[in-house]
Amino acid sequence: MTAAPATGNPVTAHVLEIGTLHDAYRSGALTPADVIGEIGRRIAVRGDDAVWISVDVEGALTAATALGAVLDPALPLWGIPFAVKDNIDVAGWETTAACAEFAYRPSETATCVRVLQEAGAILVGKTNLDQFATGLNGTRSPFGIPRSVSDPAMISGGSSSGSAVAVAAGLVAFALGTDTAGSGRVPAALNGIVGHKPSRGLVSTAGVVPACRSLDCVSVFAHSVGEAAEVIDIMAGVDPADPWTRDLPDAAGTPTGPVGLRLAIPATIELSAEHGYDRAWHAALERLRAAGVDLVEIDLAGFTEAGGMLYDGPWVAERLAGTVEFVDARPADLHPVVRALLERGRSVSGVDVFRGIDRLRRLERDAADVLKTVDALLTPTVATTFTVQQMLEQPIDNNTRLGQFTTFGNLLDLAAIAIPTASERPDRPFGVSVIVRAGGDARMSAVAAAIESVVAPDHASGFPSLGGASQPAGGGPQPTLPIAVVGAHLGGMPLHAELVALDARLARATVTAAEYRLYALDTVPAKPGLIRTGPGGFALEVEVYDLPIANVGSFLAGIAAPLGLGTVRLENGDEVHGFLCEPIAIAGAREISEFGGWRAYVASL
Amino acid sequence: MTAAPATGNPVTAHVLEIGTLHDAYRSGALTPADVIGEIGRRIAVRGDDAVWISVDVEGALTAATALGAVLDPALPLWGIPFAVKDNIDVAGWETTAACAEFAYRPSETATCVRVLQEAGAILVGKTNLDQFATGLNGTRSPFGIPRSVSDPAMISGGSSSGSAVAVAAGLVAFALGTDTAGSGRVPAALNGIVGHKPSRGLVSTAGVVPACRSLDCVSVFAHSVGEAAEVIDIMAGVDPADPWTRDLPDAAGTPTGPVGLRLAIPATIELSAEHGYDRAWHAALERLRAAGVDLVEIDLAGFTEAGGMLYDGPWVAERLAGTVEFVDARPADLHPVVRALLERGRSVSGVDVFRGIDRLRRLERDAADVLKTVDALLTPTVATTFTVQQMLEQPIDNNTRLGQFTTFGNLLDLAAIAIPTASERPDRPFGVSVIVRAGGDARMSAVAAAIESVVAPDHASGFPSLGGASQPAGGGPQPTLPIAVVGAHLGGMPLHAELVALDARLARATVTAAEYRLYALDTVPAKPGLIRTGPGGFALEVEVYDLPIANVGSFLAGIAAPLGLGTVRLENGDEVHGFLCEPIAIAGAREISEFGGWRAYVASL
Repeated sequence: MTAAPATGNPVTAHVLEIGTLHDAYRSGALTPADVIGEIGRRIAVRGDDAVWISVDVEGALTAATALGAVLDPALPLWGIPFAVKDNIDVAGWETTAACAEFAYRPSETATCVRVLQEAGAILVGKTNLDQFATGLNGTRSPFGIPRSVSDPAMISGGSSSGSAVAVAAGLVAFALGTDTAGSGRVPAALNGIVGHKPSRGLVSTAGVVPACRSLDCVSVFAHSVGEAAEVIDIMAGVDPADPWTRDLPDAAGTPTGPVGLRLAIPATIELSAEHGYDRAWHAALERLRAAGVDLVEIDLAGFTEAGGMLYDGPWVAERLAGTVEFVDARPADLHPVVRALLERGRSVSGVDVFRGIDRLRRLERDAADVLKTVDALLTPTVATTFTVQQMLEQPIDNNTRLGQFTTFGNLLDLAAIAIPTASERPDRPFGVSVIVRAGGDARMSAVAAAIESVVAPDHASGFPSLGGASQPAGGGPQPTLPIAVVGAHLGGMPLHAELVALDARLARATVTAAEYRLYALDTVPAKPGLIRTGPGGFALEVEVYDLPIANVGSFLAGIAAPLGLGTVRLENGDEVHGFLCEPIAIAGAREISEFGGWRAYVASL
Repeated sequence: MTAAPATGNPVTAHVLEIGTLHDAYRSGALTPADVIGEIGRRIAVRGDDAVWISVDVEGALTAATALGAVLDPALPLWGIPFAVKDNIDVAGWETTAACAEFAYRPSETATCVRVLQEAGAILVGKTNLDQFATGLNGTRSPFGIPRSVSDPAMISGGSSSGSAVAVAAGLVAFALGTDTAGSGRVPAALNGIVGHKPSRGLVSTAGVVPACRSLDCVSVFAHSVGEAAEVIDIMAGVDPADPWTRDLPDAAGTPTGPVGLRLAIPATIELSAEHGYDRAWHAALERLRAAGVDLVEIDLAGFTEAGGMLYDGPWVAERLAGTVEFVDARPADLHPVVRALLERGRSVSGVDVFRGIDRLRRLERDAADVLKTVDALLTPTVATTFTVQQMLEQPIDNNTRLGQFTTFGNLLDLAAIAIPTASERPDRPFGVSVIVRAGGDARMSAVAAAIESVVAPDHASGFPSLGGASQPAGGGPQPTLPIAVVGAHLGGMPLHAELVALDARLARATVTAAEYRLYALDTVPAKPGLIRTGPGGFALEVEVYDLPIANVGSFLAGIAAPLGLGTVRLENGDEVHGFLCEPIAIAGAREISEFGGWRAYVASL
């Protein structure tokens, strides 16, 4: 849980965040019912903003009231209001995919929504989108055109238009989108929020209307990298109902800050001067360089080639494959631009597809080879933006331009997080995308949090993004073994880095049961020896670290005589594995038990 | 290296094996030049057998002579003659894919061949195949029809027809095939040899004429599971030149014999009575049951559905995609049956392909779920066979029948090894296939070797297949940490199974330095406590196990007070991690050092 900045009453603050809401719930300042009431008021004030296709404040209030007033710590999203893009099934709600004639009422809730509700989140409504998620701009819906929260003349971005605006406008704390070409990232950029598009197959798409079945991802809009990662983590996992989900072992090594990060950036790039994007991009790069980030220019030609395969290549047939029965039966019921795009799929042959797959495999490996050499690829999320009017006048070409830095992502098996950065114009939010190979979501969140800590707009500078998000959940918890350390591995001591390198996390700082004695051994670096001598001994300082069980062997490999890992009994009676010393080594060693621990002893020297 | 049975002079024996040849080279009984000379004689004697498209005994003799007479132990295939299917490039040789009009002369050798030559293997020639590897029967080549080594009226199987016959007839020790629908397995079965079709992406297909680019595998024909695995292992690895190669971490746990193996078998099956395949199959099952193998019947419907997608579904367009320029330009130059099959690909739409991909993903996951519950799927390799005449009369339908148990393999991302079993008729070799999920090649080889040890035909019963092949190379060694055990984890003791479950391997049985004392602790199960007391102590029995370092944490997690893992000094001065005891626990415990170890103490009780 990301701790919240002190923004006062979070409901009167503009945005809703998981962290601030939970703080208010814990303190008793608010209940979920209070929050839903405020959301209802805000939705009423905004009126017909085209954000929602269906909304149920009454139902949300009932759910909130049922939760009561006492936060249940077992439910990580207890009382958190959220929205779902209306191409994702929720039992009892219609799924329209922004096509009323296509709509159906599912009997089952999509896996990704179900687990969020089971975690205590409260569904407020289902949001507007570019029909069948076909678009990156937000204007292709018969349910109206949501506008950027920063300027009503401007597009919101899409296809997850309503979800992005709902978060940015403070109507929910987070929202689900979907992302095939950038639908979870472009509208994040154009509304100044975070959009996390996870690795393909990390989050189940069972119960999602397909755009391109093999490429579709459920994505999350939130206000910080840490909060988005929190939601992703709850949804992540192999789902028997979705054969496209897969085991994605997480990438190794978590950066703890910007210093020493190595990021690839596009060697040549053309960004809108009118909207201030060119200056915002170079300003972000300057801040990163100043913070100690290493920037390496790369050629994006292969990425761009891959991106072209989606709407202008074989994959347009996959888009058609998902809806071909409806397109065949009721072509007049489709949005005309969407229909024109889907019809492109008919001219693609099977041979075209297989040749495309083979070419894409080459491009994917080439991209992976480049990305292996850096912590992430950093690009602007969008190169420009458009007024709604401009978008309606050039619906295809302008859409393609919006996807310049996103469309290649899913095809090349990459994950990405769009984060807002300082912009040049307050009415033109700008953002960058942090892009990595699939399977690195948790590590990507840590990298993105480090970048966020440097480039975030001022309004977000109070976010504890780095500290809060440098330990993102993700990829499911890896099993750990608690290990009590006594001496040189304590925080701040010479061997502590070994624990960090092995991804250990501090679980508690405590003392042993009063059954031990501590000796200063004659070693380099200096180390203590802990021995259990039974009742009448000392309660001695220890720190217990959760060490990934797969890394225990590497840790033990570095432990030499006379030390080893045995069992250490803690003050509260718990027994954990931890450092003990062979008795032979304390002959002649100085007993230092009376210091209460190694740290105090070292301080006394 | 598999040790060789005592068959006398291996060159006068019918078959050539890597193990026997190396024994003869080491002993000085033969040189590579002798062997190539004999091969030349055999090829001349066989005359026009349609096995070869190009052959170069003179060149092989030059290569053999250049090797000299002293086996270089750094070259695992030193002096071993092999053949390559003629859809695989070798610089200086024409690649025909069994189509003279398509032929070209590559400037580079395929990666898979290059590494074999670098390992000392000697190329004898390039072998006949069903044109463009399109077929499973061996009759679809303008270069003639190879015949089964067991009966010249019978088909050899294909498409790797020449490679299989070359091995079975003793013209080479091993040969490369390719396998998209079973081309590396069907001809193995019909010639009584082993055919190893590795996981997709384990062996580079750079320099191979595509059949279905995303499915093609290079395969190995050899005389035993162990020798095939040896060749696969040399070729395995990610190749920058082939984007379809991939990292395939090996499956865990290596069976050491047939006892306790759990194999899925088809619940319903119809095999040729005429050729004795039905009786041979049931006899193999009986032998396996008697050997302690657990057989579980499963429904193959999903596998069969997947198999149908290759020639009768969307993937026929991938076959066309690989050669479409040639098919368009020179249709009359194609074998008529091959042409008819390739032309099928034109009627496949892009939508068909993407719908097929989505359906296949479901089938693949379902198959994986089934295969997770067993050590392997066991099927006959072929359900029947045909005379050459029958095959020519029914070229499509009979081909489909040959692929009943192989065609699904590559589509479902499975690996397979075809092994010969005892047959009912000497002129009708029969075999079974051991099939696992991709990524388990080394483990698959071990399972197949265990099965081979039970079902192999009598002529192979002298093969040391189980012992030799139960530790196949492959996947690279996993790092281990040596751990000295003292008591209940010793071999035969109650907790030894913990070590087995964690894939520990006994590294040495030895004693400690004479600096320790041993105590009988009051625990259940009974355990000793080892304490270092310094010079004047005892040298006590220990067993040192190499434990995969990733499993050390799980091992430590099961160790309770007063025991732990510290450092144990061995008799020879080596220090390894191992069991030590807290001194507090020996107060009142009986010292048993004089027994020399826990085993002797327990025996004395």
